[in-house]
Amino acid sequence: MKKYNFGAGPSTISDEVYRKLSKSIIKLNDYDLSILEISHRSNIFDDILEKTIYLFRKLLNINNDYSVLFLSGGATKQFFMIPYNFLENIKKNECAGYIDSGFWSYKAINYAKYFGNIDVIASSRHDNYKFIPKKYKILFDKKKYKYLHFTSNNTIVGTQFKQIPKINNIPIISDMSSDILSKFINIRDFDMIYASSQKNIGPLGVTIVIIKKEFAKSISNNIPGIMNYKNHINSKSVMNTPNIFAIYGIMLNLEWLKNKGGIKIIEEENNLKAKLLYSEIDRNSMLEGTVNIEDRSFMNICFNIKNKDLKDKLVMLLNENNIVGFLGHKLHPYFRISLYNAINLHQVKFLIKILQLFEKKYS
Amino acid sequence: MKKYNFGAGPSTISDEVYRKLSKSIIKLNDYDLSILEISHRSNIFDDILEKTIYLFRKLLNINNDYSVLFLSGGATKQFFMIPYNFLENIKKNECAGYIDSGFWSYKAINYAKYFGNIDVIASSRHDNYKFIPKKYKILFDKKKYKYLHFTSNNTIVGTQFKQIPKINNIPIISDMSSDILSKFINIRDFDMIYASSQKNIGPLGVTIVIIKKEFAKSISNNIPGIMNYKNHINSKSVMNTPNIFAIYGIMLNLEWLKNKGGIKIIEEENNLKAKLLYSEIDRNSMLEGTVNIEDRSFMNICFNIKNKDLKDKLVMLLNENNIVGFLGHKLHPYFRISLYNAINLHQVKFLIKILQLFEKKYS
Repeated sequence: MKKYNFGAGPSTISDEVYRKLSKSIIKLNDYDLSILEISHRSNIFDDILEKTIYLFRKLLNINNDYSVLFLSGGATKQFFMIPYNFLENIKKNECAGYIDSGFWSYKAINYAKYFGNIDVIASSRHDNYKFIPKKYKILFDKKKYKYLHFTSNNTIVGTQFKQIPKINNIPIISDMSSDILSKFINIRDFDMIYASSQKNIGPLGVTIVIIKKEFAKSISNNIPGIMNYKNHINSKSVMNTPNIFAIYGIMLNLEWLKNKGGIKIIEEENNLKAKLLYSEIDRNSMLEGTVNIEDRSFMNICFNIKNKDLKDKLVMLLNENNIVGFLGHKLHPYFRISLYNAINLHQVKFLIKILQLFEKKYS
Repeated sequence: MKKYNFGAGPSTISDEVYRKLSKSIIKLNDYDLSILEISHRSNIFDDILEKTIYLFRKLLNINNDYSVLFLSGGATKQFFMIPYNFLENIKKNECAGYIDSGFWSYKAINYAKYFGNIDVIASSRHDNYKFIPKKYKILFDKKKYKYLHFTSNNTIVGTQFKQIPKINNIPIISDMSSDILSKFINIRDFDMIYASSQKNIGPLGVTIVIIKKEFAKSISNNIPGIMNYKNHINSKSVMNTPNIFAIYGIMLNLEWLKNKGGIKIIEEENNLKAKLLYSEIDRNSMLEGTVNIEDRSFMNICFNIKNKDLKDKLVMLLNENNIVGFLGHKLHPYFRISLYNAINLHQVKFLIKILQLFEKKYS
């Protein structure tokens, strides 16, 4: 029996996608070649890339004002590329705004500081990121904001923006690594969205960048080749060898999502999964949530054991029941259950049963 | 029957490795998890990474003065990172030396020009890269060279350095994307070697960087996080999620190479394969080589049809015989046969038979 993997990423993918990927390594469809030896200059790959972009556009309703790019290097590379591209030759009265809502947003801020004035317009850092900061301090009269950056879902602490920060005349950039494709978003609210692939998108190895073409026009040619978004837009993600295997896996995973009914259906399922688990955490006399209730993430659910001496007991009980990936990040060392798209209702109910068993045994 | 794929990369890998990789997507060994959902912070991955590094060190005889890193973004990202790291705050009398021996080395030069004075100490560009330039113009009295960069094998035109350029007191950096692991090299000749994984190393998705720790010490802390080699050395390639699947595939491929007998045996085989094919090109009345004989690459073998009208006939004949990947790069649009490690002698002999059949039919 395969384990139930509630890890924060690389996350589990549906069995159907695993089976197709496994087959493709021996032989991709009727091509008599492995997916791993397909050329990125072949018609076979052109078709895969085109279909993957088509599915992204369809699922997230992305129109032609935006490009959908497949880059390498993870979201961390975007922390670098964004200020490198958009803060080139920044003037004295110009800056970038960042919301500091979690450890990853903080990292993004530290990268940006290499390149120019950074204005942290809101932060919950000094409260251990227990909530989503909602009051923004924007100095419109004094500064021009080149963009505003925020992390839509904070994977490590388990908080999530329920409303997109919208501020007139400031381009919005969002790191959606851990909640893209989990719920409806209105693409028009954003100038750029990026997300590493290894959570809801598919196998790891690619970072999706959805970028407004108009927004990218401002990028200077002083930003060299492969580090320049404009070049990636012009070369349609194939400046050098892209991760063909990951993109094929993403195509299969998006097909799976589309066949399931798309974003609307998955959002309903994700809401139900999260509500069930949060209800149990609030009900269970042994457990407690770790963040503000109104800001709780529907993707990464963190909780604590009131009696810390029993932590090992719960770890053991979960392990015995073939559940893995439930321990949080070392920066937020609680229990963390990630309920990405491929986790089904049955798995969540089974986990809840174990949490109830834990209460019964040790309360 | 699987096709014979003589493509320049992503190249074919041995069937044994394909089978193991295919299995691992369903279930990695006894772990009841797919390789695609293994955490990069798990013991399972630690073991894979450690073993992969061990095999690299063993096969190429790399001692502890060097780090072996697994980065993302292909060799092209290295074109950027090298001058970004090593030409920071370059002084007026300082420069980097580059040898311009092919289209990729030329690209590397153009990236470096963003960051400082570049001295092209030798070039064959104006002869369409038909040979490896061997006379270096180095202005020792006027300039201090921070490093010398060269491309050991020119994948597009099919030439290869038979001797490493060694110049006293200049650190040597080499792009070995298309001939690493194909033949003996003395690591001590280099301060840094890099190579994208999708030729002789394994599946695509990783760039190997073998770097002398002492050489990296000079890198400034002004180079941000993930773009700084020093940080990658300190965090042992796990600053962010590395490409676990590709690294696992590399581990399997290096095991395959070790079990075959290692570098000495593969070098003998590669020499034999190349000699057989070049002999046929020189013998066959319909064909001709495209580069200087003494500089011919043993990995990428380019040839031309004397009577260009017959090109389509040869394309058809090869296709009919399940041979693919034989057309060259658009910048050097001849026939190109890549004889990477996983191509066996039988496949080369079969190809030669088809070339002989072509001569018989159309001469």
